[in-house]
Amino acid sequence: MRAITIAEPGGPEALVWDEVPDAEAGAGEVLVEVVASAVNRADLLQRQGFYNPPPGASPYPGLECSGRIAALGPGVSGWAVGDEVCALLSGGGYAEKVAVPAGQLLPVPEGIDLHRAAALPEVTCTVWSNVFMISHLRPGDTLLVHGGSSGIGTMAIQLAKAVGAKVAVTAGTEDKLRFCADLGADVLINYREQDFVEELERATDGAGADVILDNMGAKYLDRNVRALAVNGRLAIIGMQGGVKGELNIGTLLGKRAAVSATSLRARPLAEKAAIVAAVREHVWPLISSGHVRPVVDREIPMSDAATAHRVLEESGHIGKVLLVVP
Amino acid sequence: MRAITIAEPGGPEALVWDEVPDAEAGAGEVLVEVVASAVNRADLLQRQGFYNPPPGASPYPGLECSGRIAALGPGVSGWAVGDEVCALLSGGGYAEKVAVPAGQLLPVPEGIDLHRAAALPEVTCTVWSNVFMISHLRPGDTLLVHGGSSGIGTMAIQLAKAVGAKVAVTAGTEDKLRFCADLGADVLINYREQDFVEELERATDGAGADVILDNMGAKYLDRNVRALAVNGRLAIIGMQGGVKGELNIGTLLGKRAAVSATSLRARPLAEKAAIVAAVREHVWPLISSGHVRPVVDREIPMSDAATAHRVLEESGHIGKVLLVVP
Repeated sequence: MRAITIAEPGGPEALVWDEVPDAEAGAGEVLVEVVASAVNRADLLQRQGFYNPPPGASPYPGLECSGRIAALGPGVSGWAVGDEVCALLSGGGYAEKVAVPAGQLLPVPEGIDLHRAAALPEVTCTVWSNVFMISHLRPGDTLLVHGGSSGIGTMAIQLAKAVGAKVAVTAGTEDKLRFCADLGADVLINYREQDFVEELERATDGAGADVILDNMGAKYLDRNVRALAVNGRLAIIGMQGGVKGELNIGTLLGKRAAVSATSLRARPLAEKAAIVAAVREHVWPLISSGHVRPVVDREIPMSDAATAHRVLEESGHIGKVLLVVP
Repeated sequence: MRAITIAEPGGPEALVWDEVPDAEAGAGEVLVEVVASAVNRADLLQRQGFYNPPPGASPYPGLECSGRIAALGPGVSGWAVGDEVCALLSGGGYAEKVAVPAGQLLPVPEGIDLHRAAALPEVTCTVWSNVFMISHLRPGDTLLVHGGSSGIGTMAIQLAKAVGAKVAVTAGTEDKLRFCADLGADVLINYREQDFVEELERATDGAGADVILDNMGAKYLDRNVRALAVNGRLAIIGMQGGVKGELNIGTLLGKRAAVSATSLRARPLAEKAAIVAAVREHVWPLISSGHVRPVVDREIPMSDAATAHRVLEESGHIGKVLLVVP
């Protein structure tokens, strides 16, 4: 089979579409013939040598895919060869075939093209696990989403609106903010021109955000804590703005608030399976009914993954960038 | 009635046992004839002018008391004049009488002297709400308690052992650590001589603490995060070591961990009532059965509250310091 290999960590040109040994399904796994994968920021870090795959994971990048089941490993039931699926991966999505623990498979939702289903696993699992399972967003709550036009952001807006929350977003251009508004975002904040703490305060009569979904880490930590409501929950899923930040514990304590930080990739199989099962139960019906949709910026041949990485690095995209097996 | 007043914020001598207007029970409140109160660190801050009572609270210090119901305000049912009770207060415990929202009353547990019951409300509500309701300590988990010999600490040790957790404590003297061991603590760490991150790592085969109950805030923040286990929860209830600390979000994210900070006093009535109800359901039976007991360092006449504050400031005590109405 072919896969994107990383000969030496470096720029996008380090990504080479190369002949590699075939993937094989182990016990409890399913072999998926990949139709499409999608780019995540973690893939860029892996390419640069900063985010090595966890033990046992495929050495190739790619944290999600869609495709057809080509073979079942020992001990797998409930799935059949030929089933159209998408999957949350620990790696290996940038390839013609990938082995997936059965607990990380999802059926392709009704009404969604097979290749576009590759845009769903990471964003639905990340948003559901952080905003709902950890931070318990409720109807009537206010959610602040940083990077509202990203893959994660576009899914967070839609899911929060679907449960009846108010949604505020930050983004860096008016085009991106307009797109967020079309998805249902109620409060639009241009982070290049506005202070999100002030804008959120104004939009919530001083109450603040019940939940914040943050990809910036250190750079936004203090402002995020200030933007939280009483009993607010800050869920950090990325550190694009640095690793170490100052936490004002007095502000946190005064609000009886909490800060969590998670990633999906390193979780043990059982936790991933629990998240995938919750997504299938709660999110899949919203997609099948058309209330929530995958947002895809563009599709790029997987053999040209370098171009896709450049698109993410330039941050001009809206939603997910797909890699389609040629 | 008499109460401890604070003429001018300052040292312990600012506390004066003075004649004041009688407290009265409003709607939904009960008037308690106080037998005893207990000293909390927040009282010391209030005396110094750093922690003003929330709106509507009594101006006198005292966040808990025991006594007998002297009168029922309009709309109160389920309690009768003469009932022996203890109560969580927003203030006013250092007085001969105090008005208490009915949802913050607890019966005196079977087998506990009325005046010693004053040692229970703050520690049981603080530990139960933080360690169990917010941080979900489970059987088999490891709890790290900072200040294991404090009122909070001695209750946290006992409750965690009662549910089948492993308990590690920090304290500053061998006497205090021995006392913690007698209460059931499994891992004893002298913070003056040992690094608690290392000691905890050693005692848990590198796993760390599933839950940490912390009263130090900024000073311990980085070490607490390092001491957490995967999926660990740090519950901050005090800032004796400062307000602003550096949070390593990378470490937090790598562990999928969370930091919360709370206080009891500022919570709305409904939240306090929910905590008090949970304590009555889960903690009171453990006290009545003798598995968990209030730990009282000494009893001091309420008119001499200054002495009691000095005891807390010198930190030589173990458990709670009671103030008994003369």
